[in-house]
Amino acid sequence: MDISVGRNILESNDLIAGELKATFSSRKILVLNLISSPGAGKTTLLECTLRALKPEFKMAVVEGDLMTDNDARRVAATGVPVVQINTEGGCHLDSSMVRKAIGKLNLEGLDILFVENVGNLVCPVEFDLGEDYMVALLSVAEGDDKPEKYPQLFSKSKVMVLNKIDLLPYVDFDLERASRFARTLNRDLDIYRVSCRTGQGLDAWYDWLRKSVTAKKIGV
Amino acid sequence: MDISVGRNILESNDLIAGELKATFSSRKILVLNLISSPGAGKTTLLECTLRALKPEFKMAVVEGDLMTDNDARRVAATGVPVVQINTEGGCHLDSSMVRKAIGKLNLEGLDILFVENVGNLVCPVEFDLGEDYMVALLSVAEGDDKPEKYPQLFSKSKVMVLNKIDLLPYVDFDLERASRFARTLNRDLDIYRVSCRTGQGLDAWYDWLRKSVTAKKIGV
Repeated sequence: MDISVGRNILESNDLIAGELKATFSSRKILVLNLISSPGAGKTTLLECTLRALKPEFKMAVVEGDLMTDNDARRVAATGVPVVQINTEGGCHLDSSMVRKAIGKLNLEGLDILFVENVGNLVCPVEFDLGEDYMVALLSVAEGDDKPEKYPQLFSKSKVMVLNKIDLLPYVDFDLERASRFARTLNRDLDIYRVSCRTGQGLDAWYDWLRKSVTAKKIGV
Repeated sequence: MDISVGRNILESNDLIAGELKATFSSRKILVLNLISSPGAGKTTLLECTLRALKPEFKMAVVEGDLMTDNDARRVAATGVPVVQINTEGGCHLDSSMVRKAIGKLNLEGLDILFVENVGNLVCPVEFDLGEDYMVALLSVAEGDDKPEKYPQLFSKSKVMVLNKIDLLPYVDFDLERASRFARTLNRDLDIYRVSCRTGQGLDAWYDWLRKSVTAKKIGV
């Protein structure tokens, strides 16, 4: 996004994001904005999470992509309602897209709304979608320097999910370095180390979701 | 990038890119714009390439990053001249940044100028930097659906480098699927399968560079 032309766009985005926040708050829906590089595993994390938590929660997904509905079809196969947004080449979701998408969902009784953003570590971070939290995914195949190189995302996120830890033996990724730098940006960052391929570490992530749904319901 | 506000920005970018093209052409410098997701291995590919081809060619690098000069320091360690551009949060390089950067380089006798763009599959594609070719990198850890999901980059690139093929046994990546889809977008795409970690496949990429330098010198 070009800073010189960005202010009006961001202001109008924030206005609609404020409306969305009010809607989600009044309905006590936990809303998470999933952001990562392309291929870090957002859709796979969603597939696991939706399958695991379906017996406990009513969930829905807004799926953002430049093109194709591949990811929406993968999510739909879990049986959870999903609405696809195609940005037609746009590099991030904005709040007006999300407003339009949730018009197609039944929000009644919803516990969690996941918004899967476009695969991009930069532009999505600027655009509030009315979420409670940003969740940053980082695949260990991408390198442990990413929190340092893309600090905005890791500063603003509530959670960092380090994904694909089954690849750790085959890549040069220092878990401590990545975690330490992310925490210097963001002292309160919750970090989960998971592999959607093996299931390792996912229980702790599910527990965080359970705790966050409860906190939202009781208004903490 | 927001389409509604983008036209003027792109027009002024193209004007400067045209100037750069004229400069590079008159000096017969092969210019490559390296684009990929964060962590696909652009800097590592550069490190290998610079070390391998230093005896043959005079090369230089323009290194684009949001923050930090980590990558520029890695490149500088090869002994090849490098200029860092920090976009301060911007999601792509533009031609004015490259014009400013090359003012700090000695272009005399240069054979190849590599421009490493910001890690992002979307925004950099819109901004001509005066290069001869875009080179798209894709790590096999990112998934074989990326050409389909980010078609602009793979349509406009001359080369796709499939990197980290040493990870193939541990990820679900179908080389044929990725290559086939990329070629439906772009019939003439050259595809190299490499591992910078093991060195596998790099010779074919170096040969492409040699051939392209020669073509540029003789004005093909």
